[in-house]
Amino acid sequence: MTTSQTGPFMRFTIASVTALAVTVACQPKPAADPLPSWNDGTAKAAIVDFVDRVTDSAHADYRYPEERVAVFDNDGTLWAEQPMYFQLVFALDQVRALAPEHPEWGETDPFRAVIANDQAAMASFDMPELMAIIGATHSGMTTTDFRATSRIWLDSARHPRFDRLYRELTYQPMMELLDYLRANDFQVWIVSGGGIEFLRSIAEDAYGVPPEQVVGSSTQAEYRDDEGDPRIMKLPKLGSINDKGGKPVNINLHIGRRPILAFGNSDGDFQMLEYTTTGDGARLGLLLHHDDAGREYAYDRESHVGRLDRGLDEAEARGWVLVSMARDFGVMFDEQ
Amino acid sequence: MTTSQTGPFMRFTIASVTALAVTVACQPKPAADPLPSWNDGTAKAAIVDFVDRVTDSAHADYRYPEERVAVFDNDGTLWAEQPMYFQLVFALDQVRALAPEHPEWGETDPFRAVIANDQAAMASFDMPELMAIIGATHSGMTTTDFRATSRIWLDSARHPRFDRLYRELTYQPMMELLDYLRANDFQVWIVSGGGIEFLRSIAEDAYGVPPEQVVGSSTQAEYRDDEGDPRIMKLPKLGSINDKGGKPVNINLHIGRRPILAFGNSDGDFQMLEYTTTGDGARLGLLLHHDDAGREYAYDRESHVGRLDRGLDEAEARGWVLVSMARDFGVMFDEQ
Repeated sequence: MTTSQTGPFMRFTIASVTALAVTVACQPKPAADPLPSWNDGTAKAAIVDFVDRVTDSAHADYRYPEERVAVFDNDGTLWAEQPMYFQLVFALDQVRALAPEHPEWGETDPFRAVIANDQAAMASFDMPELMAIIGATHSGMTTTDFRATSRIWLDSARHPRFDRLYRELTYQPMMELLDYLRANDFQVWIVSGGGIEFLRSIAEDAYGVPPEQVVGSSTQAEYRDDEGDPRIMKLPKLGSINDKGGKPVNINLHIGRRPILAFGNSDGDFQMLEYTTTGDGARLGLLLHHDDAGREYAYDRESHVGRLDRGLDEAEARGWVLVSMARDFGVMFDEQ
Repeated sequence: MTTSQTGPFMRFTIASVTALAVTVACQPKPAADPLPSWNDGTAKAAIVDFVDRVTDSAHADYRYPEERVAVFDNDGTLWAEQPMYFQLVFALDQVRALAPEHPEWGETDPFRAVIANDQAAMASFDMPELMAIIGATHSGMTTTDFRATSRIWLDSARHPRFDRLYRELTYQPMMELLDYLRANDFQVWIVSGGGIEFLRSIAEDAYGVPPEQVVGSSTQAEYRDDEGDPRIMKLPKLGSINDKGGKPVNINLHIGRRPILAFGNSDGDFQMLEYTTTGDGARLGLLLHHDDAGREYAYDRESHVGRLDRGLDEAEARGWVLVSMARDFGVMFDEQ
């Protein structure tokens, strides 16, 4: 074999190998359904269509990856919130756990009612009573200790109806949606009315959301190093209530960008969806409607938690997608 | 040519091409100096050694990428702060720009002094007077409009001593350090006593730091949609002062992790360095010492800005690295 004979063949061979490599690397596989727990329908189609448009650099709705900020409410959106907010169950359990250190609580409402498990009294707690319970259980310790206490509870407390830990009551279709968005270079943030430190104790493990992408309500805090042990103490003073108009304010404080996708389930999320969907360019607002009493719960306008009223009235006119759990969720919770 | 003749040759060729591709992709280049504007010395060596240790998965000091949180003060650490904080120059310029809309300011101190450029009066402004100026120029508009106004100023205002825009007075060695840390999978955050929205107007372009990784002082804010135009209004009420003990508190609020590297230049950064360096495992605290009157400024214990006193006293005992601008910075600002 001479060089002149092998030359053209070698070029052909290199070209073939290169072509093969390019083919292997670039040929699109038939896309697996990224949202298998969602039933086909307008909600799923709206989500996939939005993601397709904002990630297609040839489309007028294209967004650079850094603009792809998605914000999610937590209670009632990513995990359940009935029969009461999980964090409130935690607070009540903490009152009982701390009771031996507070003998005076046995005769002082609202603590007495919690310790005695006085259901009638507990059902009629007003806001100052609830705040007293939150204050007593969510301050006076370091943020580190509070997160540890929260996590121990979340790893052990079980929901009264489902044979699961509270933390396992995350909605499987929503978990798929978080993954789908991240796979499309979205930053996924949680923007919850619940406490920021309570959520951070579980957000990474439950949702894959790192602590810096959790926004929530908070107590005021103070830096102390007077015992040679620098630490952040949670104070018994309200910091920020991350609900209603507080959500856009804290989105701006923490994220500093206007999201392009917002997903909530109650009127506490109204302003977050409004702020998100009234910016320029392509936007998507979604509201989860709890209408599946069999697999989860059915509630909206008159509910003591997760009340959805204005959202139901205005969703259509605002172009927000109303996601029906009964119709759009093929699966509710993950298989265990 | 028959198949049996070409077979072995083709296999050889495929193997060669594959080997070539692997060689090109995987051969380590001799590492270029990642910090060319730093002079060799203990400071540079301490930084490189720390980064090597925390990124070496075989080293006891290894940190997972998500733990590699680095926090930087801004004024006097990333850019200059003399003869006064740049944001204060902006505020004074804004008073003059807004004066036509406020005829009453001509007879009301502190505004009168600013408009009249009364240097003696301005030099003796007390904290309430400064806060009045900040309040008048940093509230009553949307966060979006404020950022736009800040950016216009930063793109045009020039420093009285150097023939440069203020925004161009970033320290070249510090810019290299930010890039070096990011190349080693650190999250780089700015934690500044300056205003969060002022900084966000420039942080991405000046430092490559996205808005969600900027922490600063802030006014309170309010969500408004009463004119059908949802927006975040800056209120004339102080929100958070991100200085001294406020820095660790806001680091916890925004980041939710204890950093492993902190870089400051004044006693306002003391608690941030203390909080960072007293956690478990490998940690690095750095203080920039302004000791180069020729190329920049020389100041520390008695300075009206960037006072460094306790830091100088305690750096050695705490294992913090004192970075001398005169000794450790081979270059001060970038070449223009």
